[in-house]
Amino acid sequence: MPRICFEDLEEGTVDTFGPRAITREEIIAYASEYDPQPMHLDEEAARHTMLGGLAASGWHTCSFLMRMMYDGYLKDSSAAGSPGVEETRWLKPVRPGTQLTLRRSILDKRVSRSRPGFGVVRFRWELLDEAGVTLTEVTCPILFGLREGGGQ
Amino acid sequence: MPRICFEDLEEGTVDTFGPRAITREEIIAYASEYDPQPMHLDEEAARHTMLGGLAASGWHTCSFLMRMMYDGYLKDSSAAGSPGVEETRWLKPVRPGTQLTLRRSILDKRVSRSRPGFGVVRFRWELLDEAGVTLTEVTCPILFGLREGGGQ
Repeated sequence: MPRICFEDLEEGTVDTFGPRAITREEIIAYASEYDPQPMHLDEEAARHTMLGGLAASGWHTCSFLMRMMYDGYLKDSSAAGSPGVEETRWLKPVRPGTQLTLRRSILDKRVSRSRPGFGVVRFRWELLDEAGVTLTEVTCPILFGLREGGGQ
Repeated sequence: MPRICFEDLEEGTVDTFGPRAITREEIIAYASEYDPQPMHLDEEAARHTMLGGLAASGWHTCSFLMRMMYDGYLKDSSAAGSPGVEETRWLKPVRPGTQLTLRRSILDKRVSRSRPGFGVVRFRWELLDEAGVTLTEVTCPILFGLREGGGQ
């Protein structure tokens, strides 16, 4: 039986996870594989772009957020997947060496009508820098099994 | 001077890129790093989940789409970044070995008022399987430099 089920996630609560540093090596490794634009690969080239210096790919910040979420609370949960993301905002560049904190806000939740034994929890996730400034913000629903419904 | 600038992207056009296969190894490598949930890592464990078998992390499908986009048309363009993603839909599981085609629709475009020399192009990207079924769909604006504006 997983530790965190639908019933344990409370609407209106705000929690933080981390911090965890995002390194230059990680930024370049992700970019080399998935998003080899100069602003994500090379400090000198990045200086002449809109980002004004090396910064993580937006999709990398989402992937990084996913991993912090997994380690923070999905790992031992009844999470069963997501139909997609409502909105993703890449507000400010994510620089190498930044200590990122994941802030999770639970917007609302409801028992699923179409999938017995499951409920949908809508989250807002933010990656914050050391000063508490939001760099990336994602709003997304996730399906969780109910403890009492056997949906997991 | 980049090959593709704001002026070259025509509202209402639809183009395809690829196909490219997504491999089991890639799915597991991404999942191990960013989203180690059982349905993205292990065939046997995945069979007992909502996905009914091994499938790529949703964030992996977005990363894969990003790379197909880069190779398809961003590489030699004046693309300067994006403020975020309007909507991401993970419609169907992306299975190992699927030959994915990227379909790009240009929804609309406008010259930027706040950033002289740039324009915003709104795209819908879809990853299609061999049968032409949409598995992942992303709606997202990207800033491009104008050929005539020097914004790159």
